[in-house]
Amino acid sequence: MIQSDVVTVEAAQAAIDAKTKPVGALGGIETLAIRLAVLQNTLTPSIEHARVCVFGADHGIALEGVSAYPRSVTAEMMRTFARGRAAINVLARSGGMSVEVIDVGVDADLSELAELRHARVRRGSRNMLNEPAMAEEEFRAALEVGRAAAKRAAHDGIHALGLGEMGIGNTASAAAVLSGLTGLSVEQTVGRGTGVDDAGLARKQSIVERAIVRHRPAFMKGDNRIQAREVLRCLGGLELAAIAGAAMEAAHQRIAIVADGFISTVAVLAALRITADSAEEQELPQLARSIFFAHSGSELGHGASLAACAAVDGVDARPILALALRLGEGSGAALAIPLMRAAADVMREMATFADAGVSSASPLAE
Amino acid sequence: MIQSDVVTVEAAQAAIDAKTKPVGALGGIETLAIRLAVLQNTLTPSIEHARVCVFGADHGIALEGVSAYPRSVTAEMMRTFARGRAAINVLARSGGMSVEVIDVGVDADLSELAELRHARVRRGSRNMLNEPAMAEEEFRAALEVGRAAAKRAAHDGIHALGLGEMGIGNTASAAAVLSGLTGLSVEQTVGRGTGVDDAGLARKQSIVERAIVRHRPAFMKGDNRIQAREVLRCLGGLELAAIAGAAMEAAHQRIAIVADGFISTVAVLAALRITADSAEEQELPQLARSIFFAHSGSELGHGASLAACAAVDGVDARPILALALRLGEGSGAALAIPLMRAAADVMREMATFADAGVSSASPLAE
Repeated sequence: MIQSDVVTVEAAQAAIDAKTKPVGALGGIETLAIRLAVLQNTLTPSIEHARVCVFGADHGIALEGVSAYPRSVTAEMMRTFARGRAAINVLARSGGMSVEVIDVGVDADLSELAELRHARVRRGSRNMLNEPAMAEEEFRAALEVGRAAAKRAAHDGIHALGLGEMGIGNTASAAAVLSGLTGLSVEQTVGRGTGVDDAGLARKQSIVERAIVRHRPAFMKGDNRIQAREVLRCLGGLELAAIAGAAMEAAHQRIAIVADGFISTVAVLAALRITADSAEEQELPQLARSIFFAHSGSELGHGASLAACAAVDGVDARPILALALRLGEGSGAALAIPLMRAAADVMREMATFADAGVSSASPLAE
Repeated sequence: MIQSDVVTVEAAQAAIDAKTKPVGALGGIETLAIRLAVLQNTLTPSIEHARVCVFGADHGIALEGVSAYPRSVTAEMMRTFARGRAAINVLARSGGMSVEVIDVGVDADLSELAELRHARVRRGSRNMLNEPAMAEEEFRAALEVGRAAAKRAAHDGIHALGLGEMGIGNTASAAAVLSGLTGLSVEQTVGRGTGVDDAGLARKQSIVERAIVRHRPAFMKGDNRIQAREVLRCLGGLELAAIAGAAMEAAHQRIAIVADGFISTVAVLAALRITADSAEEQELPQLARSIFFAHSGSELGHGASLAACAAVDGVDARPILALALRLGEGSGAALAIPLMRAAADVMREMATFADAGVSSASPLAE
């Protein structure tokens, strides 16, 4: 093989094809192995160190009644994360990765919880029916909370970073952002979240529709990047902005980013749109090729958000898992990362036909 | 909760519903958690200890030219397994489980390989175009090799046992068994295996068809169980028989059994049919509820073999992964077992709403 400073897709493909198995026999694992080799620029990639960040925040819109759970559950779940007893804690331990829980905007006093990282921008986003969910400086601060998390991950030698969230009301916010970014109707983006009934769903759709109409003039100005930024600021939430910031910075650090469920995927979509066409910065190609999608879940808008990501140049939005998850917290990312680790291990450790002395495929013996 | 000596599906469902998450939000992971709780008869199940058995054997039919690889590759791959450098070794290490490689019928002298378990019944199965693939005593011996592997697993405290195989020619053998068990045509069961071309596929179909016609009178006698046994003996292979034996014994030991790809799934189907209707032994319900299916792969007959398993009373044949794998070796099982472990961990470790002090779902706040 010709040595070079850059591992191309072709070089990674050749390396996986030389392994002691029929060409393509490891299917989606081979696709992951090739992507990781290119991302890490080595034919011996590794996902030894992985982490899931869980960004928690409340939503002004939750006061309108868009969730089956009271808003206090955000803080209660943050306490459960701190005690290591929530789904994400269990799944991360099971899969051999760490969890970092970040308060970017919970409406409660969590200062006594030493296990959390305290980076609160505001006690909940603003009510997007009345004003933008985040003022400009709040939005910038939330993006920066995410960027800082990605910088810590890089400092700690993290190879894969899952992006999760907790926030009562945030499926409504994510649906609004998805409709704002894509033009899809609220019937296509607003789902049942944690389990609202038919009347609750109709109410949630109506509220999201009103928020979109309220802010549409603001996010119809400027180029596509500026529009995407305004959609996220006006209709998003502090944890969605933090996820977008984390994704942009993690891509810059060449960390494999793992989008989780509906909300995380919408935030990543916003990040892809915000960095689109910035050829001078080379951010889009790096972000596009750094993003992995953990799963296709059962929340209504998840499929549409994956499809919108897939439409971005350079993005492979084929989900790793299909387990009908709809929890968030980074739970899907925690389940997918071990498969990414396995893929890296295959590329790094498997023997080739040559070094195993195994006969490769040959014409049928007659 | 009413305490009882038996964990029912209802009790396991209630336990998972009490966890701090919306009901059903962990989708397929919850299904796995419930099945494992029932199988292990505890609301604190565990897949701490897992193993993949790889049964290797050659096939008389391989001499007819049904594979893209020469028959010597079986032995070469057994040597690669022994050195820990094949896909299954890498994936099992990555997922935190052991591998046991068993020579049940390779046509080569592997006695120098201390890393293998030597249990060879015969140097390859017989050519099923001319005679049954296994004589009665050979078939019994191969089943017993599998049973012994399951007994070792039970002795070693193994909670989940993946069943893999290696054998040049064994997609032809598995296709013959699947057609023999289900009546499906060879066009529906014979695929490209490790990669035969169009001419090779036509030849493979023709050979499998001739073998089925040759033995059909033998396996049309007796009741359904006896017929299934004869199909496996006449058209199967030593490693398929060993997998069937391992599945039957592992079910008896209440170990979670993980079927891998096409060949493994066909062998498990044969085991399900052989133990069918044996109400006096209670084998069928136990085998049916002990069997997990790792993935839906891209080998032609895999989907049909999963469908045939799903038709057996009590079997949940929904595959855990969908990664377009077609390698065998137990590779899919090694990738799926960490998800089963995660499911057990969720059931065992996650807080309930009650012990976390978290508000559960409530009518929408107005």
